[in-house]
Formats: sequence, C-alpha cells, structure tokens
Amino acid sequence: MSEAREILERVARGEMAVEEAELKLKMKPFEDLGYAKPDVHRALRQGAAEVIYGEGKSAEQIAGIAKSLTENGQKCVLITRLDKEKASEVSQKIELDYREVGKIGIVGESPKERRGKIVVATGGTSDIKVAEEAAVTAEAFGNNVVRLYDVGVAGIHRLLAHSDEIMSARVIIAIAGMEGALASVIGGLADCPVIAVPTSVGYGASFGGLSALLSMLNSCASGVSVVNIDNGFGAAYTASMINHMGE
Amino acid sequence: MSEAREILERVARGEMAVEEAELKLKMKPFEDLGYAKPDVHRALRQGAAEVIYGEGKSAEQIAGIAKSLTENGQKCVLITRLDKEKASEVSQKIELDYREVGKIGIVGESPKERRGKIVVATGGTSDIKVAEEAAVTAEAFGNNVVRLYDVGVAGIHRLLAHSDEIMSARVIIAIAGMEGALASVIGGLADCPVIAVPTSVGYGASFGGLSALLSMLNSCASGVSVVNIDNGFGAAYTASMINHMGE
Amino acid sequence: MSEAREILERVARGEMAVEEAELKLKMKPFEDLGYAKPDVHRALRQGAAEVIYGEGKSAEQIAGIAKSLTENGQKCVLITRLDKEKASEVSQKIELDYREVGKIGIVGESPKERRGKIVVATGGTSDIKVAEEAAVTAEAFGNNVVRLYDVGVAGIHRLLAHSDEIMSARVIIAIAGMEGALASVIGGLADCPVIAVPTSVGYGASFGGLSALLSMLNSCASGVSVVNIDNGFGAAYTASMINHMGE
Amino acid sequence: MSEAREILERVARGEMAVEEAELKLKMKPFEDLGYAKPDVHRALRQGAAEVIYGEGKSAEQIAGIAKSLTENGQKCVLITRLDKEKASEVSQKIELDYREVGKIGIVGESPKERRGKIVVATGGTSDIKVAEEAAVTAEAFGNNVVRLYDVGVAGIHRLLAHSDEIMSARVIIAIAGMEGALASVIGGLADCPVIAVPTSVGYGASFGGLSALLSMLNSCASGVSVVNIDNGFGAAYTASMINHMGE
Amino acid sequence: MSEAREILERVARGEMAVEEAELKLKMKPFEDLGYAKPDVHRALRQGAAEVIYGEGKSAEQIAGIAKSLTENGQKCVLITRLDKEKASEVSQKIELDYREVGKIGIVGESPKERRGKIVVATGGTSDIKVAEEAAVTAEAFGNNVVRLYDVGVAGIHRLLAHSDEIMSARVIIAIAGMEGALASVIGGLADCPVIAVPTSVGYGASFGGLSALLSMLNSCASGVSVVNIDNGFGAAYTASMINHMGE
Amino acid sequence: MSEAREILERVARGEMAVEEAELKLKMKPFEDLGYAKPDVHRALRQGAAEVIYGEGKSAEQIAGIAKSLTENGQKCVLITRLDKEKASEVSQKIELDYREVGKIGIVGESPKERRGKIVVATGGTSDIKVAEEAAVTAEAFGNNVVRLYDVGVAGIHRLLAHSDEIMSARVIIAIAGMEGALASVIGGLADCPVIAVPTSVGYGASFGGLSALLSMLNSCASGVSVVNIDNGFGAAYTASMINHMGE
Amino acid sequence: MSEAREILERVARGEMAVEEAELKLKMKPFEDLGYAKPDVHRALRQGAAEVIYGEGKSAEQIAGIAKSLTENGQKCVLITRLDKEKASEVSQKIELDYREVGKIGIVGESPKERRGKIVVATGGTSDIKVAEEAAVTAEAFGNNVVRLYDVGVAGIHRLLAHSDEIMSARVIIAIAGMEGALASVIGGLADCPVIAVPTSVGYGASFGGLSALLSMLNSCASGVSVVNIDNGFGAAYTASMINHMGE
Amino acid sequence: MSEAREILERVARGEMAVEEAELKLKMKPFEDLGYAKPDVHRALRQGAAEVIYGEGKSAEQIAGIAKSLTENGQKCVLITRLDKEKASEVSQKIELDYREVGKIGIVGESPKERRGKIVVATGGTSDIKVAEEAAVTAEAFGNNVVRLYDVGVAGIHRLLAHSDEIMSARVIIAIAGMEGALASVIGGLADCPVIAVPTSVGYGASFGGLSALLSMLNSCASGVSVVNIDNGFGAAYTASMINHMGE
Repeated sequence: MSEAREILERVARGEMAVEEAELKLKMKPFEDLGYAKPDVHRALRQGAAEVIYGEGKSAEQIAGIAKSLTENGQKCVLITRLDKEKASEVSQKIELDYREVGKIGIVGESPKERRGKIVVATGGTSDIKVAEEAAVTAEAFGNNVVRLYDVGVAGIHRLLAHSDEIMSARVIIAIAGMEGALASVIGGLADCPVIAVPTSVGYGASFGGLSALLSMLNSCASGVSVVNIDNGFGAAYTASMINHMGE
Repeated sequence: MSEAREILERVARGEMAVEEAELKLKMKPFEDLGYAKPDVHRALRQGAAEVIYGEGKSAEQIAGIAKSLTENGQKCVLITRLDKEKASEVSQKIELDYREVGKIGIVGESPKERRGKIVVATGGTSDIKVAEEAAVTAEAFGNNVVRLYDVGVAGIHRLLAHSDEIMSARVIIAIAGMEGALASVIGGLADCPVIAVPTSVGYGASFGGLSALLSMLNSCASGVSVVNIDNGFGAAYTASMINHMGE
Repeated sequence: MSEAREILERVARGEMAVEEAELKLKMKPFEDLGYAKPDVHRALRQGAAEVIYGEGKSAEQIAGIAKSLTENGQKCVLITRLDKEKASEVSQKIELDYREVGKIGIVGESPKERRGKIVVATGGTSDIKVAEEAAVTAEAFGNNVVRLYDVGVAGIHRLLAHSDEIMSARVIIAIAGMEGALASVIGGLADCPVIAVPTSVGYGASFGGLSALLSMLNSCASGVSVVNIDNGFGAAYTASMINHMGE
Repeated sequence: MSEAREILERVARGEMAVEEAELKLKMKPFEDLGYAKPDVHRALRQGAAEVIYGEGKSAEQIAGIAKSLTENGQKCVLITRLDKEKASEVSQKIELDYREVGKIGIVGESPKERRGKIVVATGGTSDIKVAEEAAVTAEAFGNNVVRLYDVGVAGIHRLLAHSDEIMSARVIIAIAGMEGALASVIGGLADCPVIAVPTSVGYGASFGGLSALLSMLNSCASGVSVVNIDNGFGAAYTASMINHMGE
Repeated sequence: MSEAREILERVARGEMAVEEAELKLKMKPFEDLGYAKPDVHRALRQGAAEVIYGEGKSAEQIAGIAKSLTENGQKCVLITRLDKEKASEVSQKIELDYREVGKIGIVGESPKERRGKIVVATGGTSDIKVAEEAAVTAEAFGNNVVRLYDVGVAGIHRLLAHSDEIMSARVIIAIAGMEGALASVIGGLADCPVIAVPTSVGYGASFGGLSALLSMLNSCASGVSVVNIDNGFGAAYTASMINHMGE
Repeated sequence: MSEAREILERVARGEMAVEEAELKLKMKPFEDLGYAKPDVHRALRQGAAEVIYGEGKSAEQIAGIAKSLTENGQKCVLITRLDKEKASEVSQKIELDYREVGKIGIVGESPKERRGKIVVATGGTSDIKVAEEAAVTAEAFGNNVVRLYDVGVAGIHRLLAHSDEIMSARVIIAIAGMEGALASVIGGLADCPVIAVPTSVGYGASFGGLSALLSMLNSCASGVSVVNIDNGFGAAYTASMINHMGE
Repeated sequence: MSEAREILERVARGEMAVEEAELKLKMKPFEDLGYAKPDVHRALRQGAAEVIYGEGKSAEQIAGIAKSLTENGQKCVLITRLDKEKASEVSQKIELDYREVGKIGIVGESPKERRGKIVVATGGTSDIKVAEEAAVTAEAFGNNVVRLYDVGVAGIHRLLAHSDEIMSARVIIAIAGMEGALASVIGGLADCPVIAVPTSVGYGASFGGLSALLSMLNSCASGVSVVNIDNGFGAAYTASMINHMGE
Repeated sequence: MSEAREILERVARGEMAVEEAELKLKMKPFEDLGYAKPDVHRALRQGAAEVIYGEGKSAEQIAGIAKSLTENGQKCVLITRLDKEKASEVSQKIELDYREVGKIGIVGESPKERRGKIVVATGGTSDIKVAEEAAVTAEAFGNNVVRLYDVGVAGIHRLLAHSDEIMSARVIIAIAGMEGALASVIGGLADCPVIAVPTSVGYGASFGGLSALLSMLNSCASGVSVVNIDNGFGAAYTASMINHMGE
C-alpha cells in the first residue's frame, strides 16, 4: 500500500503533522470488489471490525467479502441476517460457525476474553430470534452476556425476580414487540444505559413493530435509546462499545 | 305522549306482545329541538342518562338541551368538554356545578349512594385532566372512586406501593400518554377489567396520543380494552356499567 | 415450594402481615422452562388461567408449556392462534380438543357450568373466524354464548330482528371489519358493556383493519371499548370477567 | 368574441363539422385576470356555473372574479369557505347574500324553481356547518332540500323515525364525523345514491376526519360514494347533477 | 310468509296505515342460512338485487347463497371477487357465466334491455381488471357501457380524442392507479357525475392505491365522488342507479 | 394517415398557421390496440421514444406493443420491470437483448454515440438492481454512464475517494435505501443536478422505502430532486434529458 | 487566506497535483460565526451562491450572515422564507429588496443578463405564493421566467391554450396542491424536464400537501422529478442549473 | 424514615440479606404531593437525580416539586421545557439559574468537576435550541461538552474540518432535523457511541420530525441509537451515563 508509505514519508520529512497522518490513515483504505467496497481498516478506525449484512447478497458475494476481510487481517467476521439455506452454501466456500436462531454466521474466532456484563432481556418467547442476534453479536465482540427471556411486563413479578441482575448490569438490551413496555420498566429499575429494540412480533395494530417502536421512543424512563425494529445486531454493537468503555 | 298510550292500549287489547311493547317504548322517544334531538328516554333504555358533549355547541344550545332533559325527568345531566368561559355563560342560564380540571359541568344532583370501587390511575401529572373527567363522571354515575395519580411505570415502585388498591378494585381506569405502558403493567397485576385511556400528553413521536393508543391496543396483558385518546368520559361510562353489575 | 413455606412461617412468627403475605404469594411463582416462564399461579392471582399464544411457538414449546401448566394444577389450558397443521403435531404429544374455525386448542376440560349471557355478533360472514375465537374462549371460561352472525349495518333490519337478544345480553362482543359500524349501532341499542373487535376483513382503504379500528375507537355510542384487530380472544377474556361480575 | 365567430364562420363555410364546433365552443373561453382565469362559459359547458372557493383569496380577488362572472352573464355566483369578516368586506364591493353557518355567499339570484328532493342528514349537531354548506349550495342550484340533523347511529331510532323521508329521497347526502357510520346505515335503507361527507368533527383517533373518511370508503352498503373531508359543497354539486337527471 | 299476511290483514282491518305497512314489508325479510343472512327482498326494497362478495367465502357457501336468492325469485345474481379456481368449483354446483378478467360470475340472466350510457375509462392497461369488474356489473344491471381504456393523462391527446364520448355520457367511471389524475381531467371535461375508482396499480409511493385515493378525494373538479380502492363493483352499482334516474 | 395530410393541406391552403399545425401533429397520433394505445409519435413529440412498463402486462401484450412501435419507426424500444421468465417468453416472439440485474429488455439497437456523463451512485450493494435499471436506461438513451456502487455515507471516505468523478459529472443519480443520506452528501459536493432515487432496501422502520423517500425530499442540499421509490428508469429518463441539454 | 497559499505553494513545489489542489480549494473555506458557518466559497464550488433560509433565524443572524457573504465577495444573496415583519427589521441593518408574495429578500444585485426560459405554472390562485418563491429565485439566478398561473387540470383548456409555451420551455416548474395532477399533464405535453412542487394548499384529505406529493411522485409521465412540499426555492435552484446547461 | 430503619434492623438481626436490603432501599421511597410523587431517592437508586419535566405543570407545582427534592437532599435539580414566562414565575418562589435557549432551569448547583468529553453536534442553526437542552443538561450532570453547531452534511467539509474532535469524543450527540443524515455520517467517522436526536426543524414532508426520526433509525452506520424527536435532555442523560462509565 504505497499511499500509506507516502503519508508516512511526508511525516518523516516533516511535511505532515502526526495527527493529520493518523486521520488520513484512519479514513482511507478499502478494497474495491466491484459489487462492494469492504472496509478493511475499520477495526483500526473504529475499534470494531466490518460486519456483513447477509440479506440481499448472494452466497458468492458473502464469501467473497468475508475472504477479502480475513485476508486483510480481520480475525473475526460476523455475517448477520443469514438464513439457513444460504449459510449452508456459504459454508461450502469458507469455514463458518452458524447460529440458527439468531441467523448469524461467524468466520474466524471470537475473542477468548469476555468483559463486563450485558443483559439481554425479552418481553416474550417470540422475541428470542432478535435477542439471539444481539446476544451472539455481543459475545463475538468480547462481552459477557446474561439472557433474561420472557420477562414481559404483563407478569411484572417475572421481571422483578431478576432485579438484582438488572441492577448490576453495565448495559441492558431490552427487546420487545407488541406494546414494547419492557424498555420503560427496565429503564426505571436500572442505573445503566438501556438500548431498546422494538420487534415486529405482534399482529393487527402492532403494524409490523411500529407500536413497540413508538412506545420505546416515548419512554418516560431516562437512559433509554432506541434502534431500528428487529435490529438486534445494532443494539449489541452499541452495547459492546459502552460495555468496553466501562473497563 | 299519546303514542306510548297507543302502544299500551294495543297491549291491553292483546294486539301486541308485552316484549314488543317494551322494545317500542325503549326505542322511541326523543325531543326535536331542530339543532339537536336529545334522547329523553335514554335512562329508561340504557340505564344511564343522556350526556351533553359540550365542544362545538354554543352556551345556548347546551342550556337548551339540558333544560329539555331535566324537564323530561332526568335528574342529573353531565356536560363534558366544557371550557371555563362557556361554563360561566351556561351557569347564567341554568344552575351548574362546574369542575374545572376535568372540564365537566353537572346540572341537577348526582346519586347520593355510591357503590363498588373504581380505581382511576394515571402515569403522570399531566394526565390528571383526563383522569378528572373520568373520576367526576364515575362519581356522578354513583360509583366510589379511588384516585392513584403519577404512578407511571418508569418508577414501578410507586405503582407497586399501591398493589393492594389495584388488586381490590372492581374496575380500573388506566390513563397514560407517552408510551402508555401503565395499562399493561396494571393489567398484569389486577384481576378485574381494565379500561385503558391513551392521552395526548407527550411530544415528538407521541403523535398526539397515537403512541399510547397503539401501545394499549397491543397490550400483552389480558383484560385490557381501550377507548379513544383523552376519552375520560367514555372510560368512566363503561367502568360504571361494569361496576354496577358487580352488586 | 420452600419459599411459600418461608412466607407462611414468617406470618406465623408474626413477622409479616397477612395482607403482605397474600400479595407475595399472588405475585411470585412461575416456572422457568428456559424459552418461556409460564405463570403457574395466574388462576390464583387473576382468577383466570394462563393461556398460550400459539403463533411463533413450535409444537414442542406449546406442548411443553401446556404440560407445565396442567401439572401445576390448571384444569383447562387454551391455546390460541393454533393452525391446523401445528394442532395435529401438538395432539400427538398431548390430548387436544381442536376447534378449526377459531383456531383454538383446548387441553383439559372446560367448566361444566356456564353463566350469564355473552352475545357475539359479527358484521359479515368473513368475520366468523374471529368470532369463533371469541365464542370458544368465552365458553371455555364458563359463559353462555349467543352467536349472531352476519348482522351488519348495511341491512339494519337483520340486526333489529335480534333487538331482544341484544337488549337482554350481559356483555356483547361486536366484531366487524370494513367500516366497523356495527359497534356503534349495537352500542346505541344495548344497555350493557360492548367490547368491539375490529377485523382485518376488507380490502383497499380498510388498510388491514385500520379503518374498522378507528371507527370503533371513535364510536359515538357510550359503553364501547375496543381491543386489537382480530383479537377475539382478548375480547372474550374481558367479556368473561364482566359477565362473571354480574352474578 | 371574434374567435367564436370564426368558428361559426368555418362551420358556415362547411370547413368544420357542427359537432367539432360545439366541442370547440364548449372547451374554449375563459377570462384572464392575471391572478385567476375564471371560466366564464362553464354553465354552457357543464350545465352548472363557476363557483368561487373563498379560502386563501382576498376580498378584492373574490369581488373581482364575481364581477367578471356576472358581467359575462352568469346569473348566480356562489362563494364558498367565506368567513364572516371577509364576507363583510366583499359585501362592500358587491351585493352579497351571506349565510353564516355554512359560510357561503351568494351573488345574484338563485333559480326560483326547485326540483326533486335531496335529503341532507347529519350524525350530530357539530356537523351542521358542513351540512349547511351542502344545503345552501343545493338550494342555490335549484333543488328541494330536506334537512335531517342529529340522527347519528348511536340512537338508531332517531334515524328510523325518518325512514320514509330516506326512502323517498332522490339523492341523500350523509354527513358525519367520528366513526362515520351514518353513511352505511342510510346506504342500507335507501334505494337512491348516497353521497357521503366525512367531517373533521371529533378528537383523538378521529385524526381530523380520517376515521370517518376510511369508514365511509369501506362502507359495506352499496350505492355510497365519498367526497373529501368537510366538502359539503362538492357533495351538493354532485347531488344536484343527479337530482336533475331524474326529471 | 305469514308475517307479511299479518301485516296486510292489519292494514285491511285499518289498524295499520298503508305507508307503515309498506315500510315494514320493505324492511323485513331475509333468510337465515346460519353462516349468512341473504337479503331476499333487496330487489323490492332497493331496486337492485343482492350481490355476493366472493372473497373469503367457500364455493359451497357461494352456491348456497346463490340458490337461496334465485329460489326466492331473484333473476340475476352477481358474484364478485371470484377467482378462476373457485369459479370452476361453483360452476359444478350451479350454472355460472364466468368473466375471468373482471373475476365476476353471473347466475341467471341479465336484463335484455340496456339503457343510457355509462363510460368506463382507465388510465392504463393494468387498470383493466378493475374496469371489467365495473363494466360487467353495469351491463348486468341493464346499462349500455362504453369502454375507454389506456387514456391516462400523461398522453392527454389520447383522452381528448374521445372528448365527444366523455361529453355525451350520462355517468362516467374513471379508474386509475398511480397518481389518479384521470378523474380530475375527466371531471373538468364532463357535465355528468363522475365516479372515481382508485386502483392499487403502481409501486413504491403509491402505497397500495393510497396515492390515487387521496388524489381523487382532493380533485379540484366538481362532480367527482370516490369509492374504495379497486372497488369496480361499487362504482358500477352507483353509476347504474344514476343512469337509471335519467330516463 | 389522412389526418396529417389534411392538416398539411390546410397549411398549404393558408387556412392554418405553421405553428398550429406543428402543435396538432405533435399532439395527435397513437395506435389503438384495444388493450393499449401506444404513442407512436412520442419520439417526435418529446424527443424520447415510448417505453413499455412490463409489470402487469402479458408477454403477448408486451410483444404486441413493441412490434407496433418498431413498425411505426421507433428504432429502440425499452421494456422495464421485465422479470426473467417473462423475458424468455417475449424473446420467443421478438428479438430481445435482456439485462437481468436491472430487469430491462431492449428491442432494436441503442444509439451508437454516447454523450456527456451521468454518474450512477448507490449507497449499498443491495441497491444495485435499481441502479442497473437506471444505468442501462441511460445508456440506451445515448449517455455515457459512470457507476459508483456501495459508496454509502457510513463510510464517507469511500465516497470522497470519488470526489473528482462527482465534481465532473453533468448529472448524478443518487440511489439509496435505509436512511437515504447519500443524496444530501452528494448534493453538497456536486455542482450539477442530482436526481435522488429512494429504494425499498432496508427493514423495520424503513417502511418499504418511505424513510429514504422522506429523507431525500427533505434534503438540506440544493439541486436535489426526487423520483418514486425504486424508480431507476424515471431517474435515468430525466437525467438523460438534462445531460442532452448540456451539449 | 494562508491555507490557500500553502496549497498553491505545494503545487508550485510539485508536491501536490493540480487536480488535488483544485479539490482542496473547492472543499475548504467557510467562516465560523458561532451560530452559523456560512459557506463563503460555494459560488466557486457549486456555481451558485449561498442562500439564507430565513425561518427560525433572527433578524440579527440573517443580517450577520448576509454581511459575511457579501464581504467575502458574493454579489447577490437570497433570503427565503422571510416574513414581512422580519424583512422590515433586516432592512434596517442592510439594504434589502423585499418581494412580499414569495417572501424573498434580495441583498445586492441580481445578474443583468437572463438566459433560456423557465416556465412556472400553478394549478390554482392559492399556489401563487410558492410560485413566486420559485420565480423570484429563478430570476435572481439569471433565468428568463414565464408565469402561467391558475391553469389547473379541472379546466384543461386553460392549460392547452398555453401548449406552445409549455412545448418551447427549457425547464418547467409545475406547482399544485390538492390532487397535484398538473405535473402529470404537463409532463405528458412537454419535452423538457419538469420539476414538480406539491403545495400545502387544500383541506381535509390533502393532509398538508401529502396528497399532491404522492400524486407527483407517482406521475405516469416521464421526465418529472419532485421536491419537498412548498419548496419553490429548491425547484428554482434545480431548474436554474438545468437551464444554464442548455446554453 | 422508620421503614428504612426497620429494614436495617432486620439485616442486623440477620433476618434479611444485605443484597435484599439494598434492593429494598433502592426501590422504595418517594414523597406524595398529591399531584405528583417525586422520587426523592433516585440519585441513590440510579446515580442521577430526579428531573422535572416543566411542560404542562404550573409554576406552583414546579416550585413545590423542586423544594421537595432539595429538602430531601438533592443538590441540583433540573427543570426542562420551561418557557421564559413560567421561569420568571418560578424564580419568584425559588432561586433559579435559567438558560433561555435550551429552556432549562437549574436549582442548586451543578457539580464543579467535569469529566470526559461529550460532543454535541447539529446539522443547522435552527437545531441549536435542542442542542442547548442537551448541552446544558450534560454540563449539569458533570460532563465536559464540546459544541459543534451548523455542521450539516450538505457542506460535508464543515464536518470533516472537525474530524479530530469527532474522533476523540467519548460520546457524541448528533442533532438534526430535515433529512437527519448527520447521525449516519458521524456514526461512520466516530469510534464511540452516537446518540441521535431528530428535531422537528423543517417543513412539508419533514412531518414534524418524522423524516429525521426514520432516517436516524435506519442509519447504515453502526453504534447509533435514537431518542424521541427534540429530546435533547434524554440524549444528554444517556450520554452522561456512558461518559461516566469511561472513567
């Protein structure tokens, strides 16, 4: 990569400040595959590696991007929204650890050491798919994860029975469909940031997750922020960032 | 009312069955004021008297309808959505007991005896206007009312501190804006019907009460049904019907 | 269940008030199956047993939860939103009485004695699926049910022909798609609570039940409250609560 | 109008067919006032004169357009959505018959002879403003009008008491806010076209008339068509066209 | 039908006025099939026979209702929204004339004589399905129909080339998806009522017909009223009523 | 085409001005195939040939229209939204160059000469389908096209790496789903018109492209205008018009 | 501006390519006023000067930014959405040419020479406010403007009477509220790009311009692109870019 | 507070575990003012003090709650959404430090020591109101704040000029109206959590902030989570939690 060398040589010659050089190096390189431009230096730049969003990409494209990333030195590549059938195709081209419930594929190896504590809570049994997308992602990014499933507010005692785990968490991911009230109740109990994930679980006036989304955005509890409907990955990514700050 | 006599005479003559006559009597009479057709026999027909929706009616029209009803024997007439200024105009034409917070006017006298127990709970302080519309209505219809204000789910212990009142209620009216989660949590604690009232309290993505409305319709707690946004009166009307059944 | 004993012993020793103990007992126990936390004491707490929402659960999960409930003493377990195929799988694991139209499975036996009178009315023939979900649920909860199907307001005489049944009901469940006007007309005729169920029946501007939902929420008739689109079960649950109060 | 002459001369010379000439004459003339292009031949072309939509136009513009039309031979000019204050300004420039409730101004004289029968029905007292816009328009276009106000479906007997007027109408304009069920019930009773007008009367989930609009579009009664929210004028225009066909 | 006799005997005995008797006769009879209550006297009451909405009904139900209607004297029964497969099932139980494009089945025979003139115009080729539902219905109700297909406003000369047919129509049905502008342009050219039918044709921001629906409701042309998205039948029903008035 | 001759003869005889004649010729001819009225003179009138929207048309209809156009002298006919299967049917009736990714078929030959420079940029890999619809269309209309795929704003350096191509473009088509921010960023960098195309790529709160659509309409960058969701063809058509003006 | 010098010196020394230097110069300078960062080199970068969006800014802020821009060499500064009162305050601080109808203020002098031809057309009289925002902007950017006001599609002959101006335009701005059909009809007649501007003119189901917006996005005419509701400025900016390309 | 003593005594007597006691103490106390139940121990429980939402509360209520909190030992009380007039009333009852732009009142004194670094960035000048609500809140909670205002994406160089501040932040609050793209671009540049705040700044299709909200929820950048429209306080609360974890 001659350009990086050029930058460094300029720095050596005193023509460019160290800070400017760092910025340039952080912003620059990506590989151009034609159909995609994977960001091979994201780990350097953002501290977390590039992740492949599997939906709408062919098995060939996914394997191609994954190879490009691993060849450029990324140790662990996540592939999200990867359905079972496509996962089996991908696994014929590249070694893949596939987690069916959360529809995530892992290429390479996750960090051995896990830090802190992220609680992943769901309102109901049907939200577990989204929760596993979050939990597997968080683990792959090196976080300890505690799963609290089916603790919806209609049976508040099931949630209160876990008050200690909620109160001792460093970050909580609250996942719920239908009325999405879980985020507010947890937000009121916890003293750490809560990432709320509305799910498309429900029917009728849940309008594909709109009800839970609005509910969470309007939470009267402080410390709650929200990601897109069913976006377990996004919640885990943010939660991991926060959890790693706390150490 | 010659028509009623005619019906009765037919019954007397055996030309009409008692059941049919009762139905006819229940369905018939109203007075035609031109601008309105107040239903002077509603108390007979439905067991609850006609109520005047004050918004969009002039003080003259309101007083006119109220007189028509009292002259036809209705003992207590409620006027809802009556703002302070118009109330003062109405009170110059007809004796009026005005409750400012809930914007309700009462003509005549409420039943002395109050039965059962309706709990009126709100998520926040700003929901009290709607709550008072409900509470005053419920009292005017002869129900005992317990007010639990500002017990929103973001501080769940404030609600749990009143568990016994919630568990001993005959009907509960759960009033909340923003994320509207109160209805679900109460619905999970209580073993009586819960009437949920979304309010327009909130801002941004509360979209004038839409968020709370959807939340309540999607409640994962059983036993919860919903009325229109800010409809304290409607909730109290239904709650009163239910409370009176229990005795 | 050692914890219950502990509570009772505290009461015995005078360390805990009777009321507090009752509350604790009501709020506590559930069984943790990992993928779900069925609420084995709901019958004690709320007077109605736990119900399984079948959609999105596997046959294994459904049978597992049902067993957990029956083994904990629940006599009758309802499974809603259970399609035909899954029902046949479940019935290989546990004895099941399956009602195809309303998509409800019943494990155990419904109460022999039925009380009061719930009228289940629909606007059209296509609403019958939702109506049967409501009717079967109501019967399983021990209520007498009268079915009035296809009495939509466009042929108002079909509804008026049943005025006597409407006027003698203790609770009415009004089920309609498209413009959802049935709830308002019934609400005007009846002197009992009306639970309105919008259905997703319709096309074009019915927007999956939104039209009927808004219509019912805006009902100008008093005494009408609303549940989620197609939520026959929820309406029946509330109706049953109310019907049982009247005795 | 030299162009019209030219057309006729061509016809005279046999260069243009009579049908083509008629079409040209029907399609052509308007006067260009700069800020507006009033259609001075609409009466010829469509059988109904140009009407001025008052909202957003200044008193000067309104008077200017009205003069242009009367000077071009139109006998009666309607001005809709004309608020009281602006009406008083207009009346200083041109003679004006102002109807305050329906906010309509009439310049010139309505046809003496009135035909057929248009029923204008409203669900409530608050819908009367829209109803008067419709009724005054219909009268100005030479139709007999019967007003049936406050006959909403929550007290169905008030509507049924007028069954004979509904059944003998040539066209019915059904005006209602909130749940808008009036159109369906009337549509089921009547054997003539029903023009439904949703109104913005209501609050909360009426969403400015959306609820009534959707309700009317989804009417299960045949023979019902719908105009814009609060569009009393538009309903009367169509109703008048239909009523005049029947003679 | 003993009840009709009873009514007539009361009239004979002078106990009931002729008008009241007529009303009663018009309002009463329907047959109860359990799953449906077909309205066997609608032709008497409304001048047009009962029509069967095929969607969501089984072939058995459709054939059953059709038989009930023909046995009660209705000469021609329309079945709308009848897909090809179900039509073939129905035709094994009852003689059926099936029109595939408009998905309409006809049982019995349409009136020989056709009156007046209804123009059915579409914006594009894809709207023809809805147009045929309208055209076949209108013909079955005894109207002359002129089809003008693919005359959308983006090529306004295609529409203007048919100005004479538009100007000589008694009623026009304007059918369009996407931006739905056809109704406004035709409304400006024609001097007869225009029934606008938005269609679900389009993609993206057409939102299943919402765009065309709003467009038509907001038409700046007078004389335009609107029915539900894709509701060709409803438009034809109203158009037929109007067309028959003009003779 | 006798009518064109007639027009010309009138001009020859001095009865019609040259300008009027040109206008008439431009507005007139189309061929009537019954199910469609292809506009055989659009190339003359608008400078771009008629294009066939393939969705919802049968292979027969598509081939028929294409033949009608080519026989009337159009050299190159585009068929958009043509899925693979239907393309293969069409290609059995008429010679077809099919581009699978953009789902476009080309009949006849595109212009050899290509002018100017249109940049087609996408936010992600999944937007390429829409981009190819645009790119192939633009090429078929005689424009040079530069493809910049997967340059979304979350990795702004990928976009900035192409600043020179963006700054030297004559028109840019910015295609993005999800948050659609690409259009604003490009709009700020470029000094040429930007046509923004929202795509339906995304999930949850992208609501089928609504999010990207609103984002693009609200762009704070000047020079951005928007077409329908997924409308690659429409963007290319406008871009081609603009690109051809610049020479 | 020492930085610019530095860049140039690097170029002089051969350390930086000419292209890179140009890019740097285009992307860099802005002045930081604390509350705003006006872009003093936009004219250089994008060929059009910075424009001030007046809404939500104080008279002080507006005058401050305008001064900063003129002092940096911009000859003509536009201030949009500037209401009358604020304009009068601004004009006390800086010389201002205020155009009330379009609510635009001009500081400095517009280009003397005007090129090409932009047609600004409106559907109605009420759309003129938006049209003047567009027309004044276009003139200030050096374009010839032709105004065609009140040529809505409900009187199509008013539009056709101007066919020659539409057909000879280089760009057309089509402005309409309510059903917004003007854009489609003009798009079908014209052979140049059409920029469509939906307006918030209308009531009821126009939903603040949503109806016109959707209509324009779904236009079946090619060559139409859309800007935000009431965004006359944005349309003119794009139109000016295009019009200047054609010369 | 006898209850706290009781708990402690039980602990002392060995009847209650330390963990349980802590939990009880955290969950319990609040003061009941009738109209509100301020949470006097929130600082203990959640590590951040109770904040008063000023909108919809009277000056009396606000002052009352503030006093209750300070008397219970809270050192600094924030009052948000406090307009100027009400602030002046409140300041007559209790000492108040009022910040007009962000509409925040501060009672008591903020922490002297400020930690870490929160960047508050806005897209435009009009978003500053929301930004100041966030910035003042963050400062009152003891965080260092860097303000980057008017760095919207349409002039991307203004944002890039601050890359170093963005890259060195511990948390970023990205505030933008209109298309809300700022969050995505910042999310791509930063390697810390980004809290996105959509604002209601904009017009037309911004629909009161909906456009920016959807845009931010659909952000293709990882690490972005979203709070309610205009919720500067909520963003700052979460950001403060995160910033404090990092030390």
